[in-house]
Amino acid sequence: MKEVASLVPNGRLVLATIASHEPDGYLEKYQKSFGELGIKDVIELYVNDRLEAAHEKKISALADVSAVFFSGGDQLRITSQIGDTPIDERVHEIYEAGGIVAGTSAGASVMSETMMVRGPNAASFRIGHIRMAPGLGLLPNVIIDQHFAERGRIGRLIGAVSQNPRVLGIGIDEDTAIVVKGEMFKVIGSGAVYLVDAAGVTHSNIAEGEPDAALSIHDLRVHVLSSGDAFDLGKRRPAGVP
Amino acid sequence: MKEVASLVPNGRLVLATIASHEPDGYLEKYQKSFGELGIKDVIELYVNDRLEAAHEKKISALADVSAVFFSGGDQLRITSQIGDTPIDERVHEIYEAGGIVAGTSAGASVMSETMMVRGPNAASFRIGHIRMAPGLGLLPNVIIDQHFAERGRIGRLIGAVSQNPRVLGIGIDEDTAIVVKGEMFKVIGSGAVYLVDAAGVTHSNIAEGEPDAALSIHDLRVHVLSSGDAFDLGKRRPAGVP
Repeated sequence: MKEVASLVPNGRLVLATIASHEPDGYLEKYQKSFGELGIKDVIELYVNDRLEAAHEKKISALADVSAVFFSGGDQLRITSQIGDTPIDERVHEIYEAGGIVAGTSAGASVMSETMMVRGPNAASFRIGHIRMAPGLGLLPNVIIDQHFAERGRIGRLIGAVSQNPRVLGIGIDEDTAIVVKGEMFKVIGSGAVYLVDAAGVTHSNIAEGEPDAALSIHDLRVHVLSSGDAFDLGKRRPAGVP
Repeated sequence: MKEVASLVPNGRLVLATIASHEPDGYLEKYQKSFGELGIKDVIELYVNDRLEAAHEKKISALADVSAVFFSGGDQLRITSQIGDTPIDERVHEIYEAGGIVAGTSAGASVMSETMMVRGPNAASFRIGHIRMAPGLGLLPNVIIDQHFAERGRIGRLIGAVSQNPRVLGIGIDEDTAIVVKGEMFKVIGSGAVYLVDAAGVTHSNIAEGEPDAALSIHDLRVHVLSSGDAFDLGKRRPAGVP
């Protein structure tokens, strides 16, 4: 949050609580935390349903704003309620104009082109046990998973990238974030970020096995990054800090 | 256990309950399970302390036996109480003569040259947060971790192999086993086996960071194997089933 606050250009931030079914209290909590970091103007954006995402009043919340923060909850709620609406369009505009679009938990998962929706924690990946869905698509060619080490999610991230090695898997620990600028990102926070690259895979049974079969996959490349490390998403390689 | 039972040559198996501080009831439980699998003669081997590991009566339990099964508990109890004793020597003799030396949980960890003793579950690896110790050394050049996906142990296994990439990391899920014969092993059971190979690593901060710093490591190679898959420990490559 400190990093987000430092990047907000004009002291104004939209808090999108759309991932939550019960967003009461979120605004106050974030107003306090961001307020202490110098962001005095935190505006909540919530939609009860998809129709509201086209209301003029909702869209105008994003006028004169260059920073949006998606709080946690259910990533499917974000994409199903605002995907392909004027709000979605405006979020992309802000990002493409160099503004900040940030998120935590579900709000981080939603950034990728295809997003993780559900999959086993603390278990090896079973071929049929995963659900993915189209994300907001701010970051192409990646799939983001979060609460990563804490919930034992390496299995499901490997399962996700096995389905199409074009997509790079990014697993982000709690109290940890990636700060993306163009094709580069840097890691901040106390935990680690895992990159799972299936481009060099020589064998997998993903398209063959029964839904309950355990995945078999050879020659994954894995990088573990920690605070201060950087990564080049274009080259799919660790890099010097940008 | 079915696989172990199928490999026992003469219906006789020594159950080494040494890993446990309170082994009461283990014998009855394993006699029942192995009995149902055709192993009628299950003999318990326990030592209260290191001196007992040299007692003639204890050593004679391993005479005319070609199969030893180490039950779970604390791997340090096994190595501290029987390491470099006549019992240890006899276990190696049995293995080298083509007998079966098997184990579950701590009893599996103990097979390797260096063994995992303690490390964080469901967390990324912190440079100072791991303890390893010399194992029984039946399997050279590997380190074995168990309850692998279930306890989110990829972080600590990566941490272990980062310290010396000569050692190949083997993470074994619950209800899953590797059956080693010479340099080959096959995977059996319902879960997965993870191989973490740090031989190609291009960067790590393991020797630099503060004890609480998160590990950073690039270019790990990871294989995920499931039932029926095989691996060549000599070549460090997945292989055809032996």
